[in-house]
Amino acid sequence: MYLSQPLILASNSPRRQQLLKDAGISFVVKSKNVLEDYPSHLKGKEVPLYLSELKAKAFLGELKDEILIAADTVVHLDGQILGKPGHRTEAIAMLVMLSGRTHEVITGVTILSKGATLSFHETTEVRFSRMDTKSIEYYVDNFKPFDKAGSYGIQEWIGLTAVENINGCFYNVMGLPVQRLFRELSLLNNKLKNI
Amino acid sequence: MYLSQPLILASNSPRRQQLLKDAGISFVVKSKNVLEDYPSHLKGKEVPLYLSELKAKAFLGELKDEILIAADTVVHLDGQILGKPGHRTEAIAMLVMLSGRTHEVITGVTILSKGATLSFHETTEVRFSRMDTKSIEYYVDNFKPFDKAGSYGIQEWIGLTAVENINGCFYNVMGLPVQRLFRELSLLNNKLKNI
Repeated sequence: MYLSQPLILASNSPRRQQLLKDAGISFVVKSKNVLEDYPSHLKGKEVPLYLSELKAKAFLGELKDEILIAADTVVHLDGQILGKPGHRTEAIAMLVMLSGRTHEVITGVTILSKGATLSFHETTEVRFSRMDTKSIEYYVDNFKPFDKAGSYGIQEWIGLTAVENINGCFYNVMGLPVQRLFRELSLLNNKLKNI
Repeated sequence: MYLSQPLILASNSPRRQQLLKDAGISFVVKSKNVLEDYPSHLKGKEVPLYLSELKAKAFLGELKDEILIAADTVVHLDGQILGKPGHRTEAIAMLVMLSGRTHEVITGVTILSKGATLSFHETTEVRFSRMDTKSIEYYVDNFKPFDKAGSYGIQEWIGLTAVENINGCFYNVMGLPVQRLFRELSLLNNKLKNI
């Protein structure tokens, strides 16, 4: 897709960078350290939407003609939000919670330009088969999923061998709802061309 | 997973080989040229089941203590089976059919050992957004999906930008229902150990 304005991806995630590249979109990466903290009354999709807006707003006042994309992905189970695990024990505990059950992966995306902000969220349901402690420990020790919401990468060993079913966008589970983002960027691009 | 018997993957598909490797399963590749022809009265899942058995049976009488895996993947829409496209025009026609609709991807898998055969099938629903002819031609000309059932790879540009939703196993759409296969191999392995 040819965009009439330069694109900035405000994310250090190598997975988001790869997905955007594979979608044929040109961009540069610029990211800022934003404390990923949110008000405790927020629920479900509100959390990743709030955090993607927070990450995007750190660039307010710095944009000229660029379009900026920020995103945040969380795992949602029983009304609880699972982000990145702090350490091995927490990673194992999260995977024990997810074992044999269906959870939601929700990504919030914010597209920011000088004139406008658009935010949306995308939800994918993921069902894990029952995993024994040995498999969970094997995964955590070998793949160290400490940079991943919910402590797993669907594109890694655990995703191949223990994810029974997904309902929604697969790439959303990896951190970026590429098809939806591609569509929103196309619409935005057409609008900008017609100004 | 440690298998007590050597495993043969009877498939030249680089995607199946990569998926089995990423699932941590050791194997060797042996494949035979089998004419992928099936009786015209077969319908839906019967076709990939028949073809996976056909591919496996080509090795009957050659197996010692090995376990052999064969698989076949088809796309199913309106009662019609779409296999690999023969040429550019057919590839484009298939993608025009799939545009804006939901189809089924069905993989048949046969696990063959000297003493027993197990076959199963796995279905994943895939919904494509509406694609214009320009995008379809761009994809076919740049990715040449002539070795792929239904003329697309969900892991390629078209999958990232135009697949709206999937329901089922993602890796099944790539050609191998890895989670189900992993489970069946574990069960088989436990059974063999207990003999």
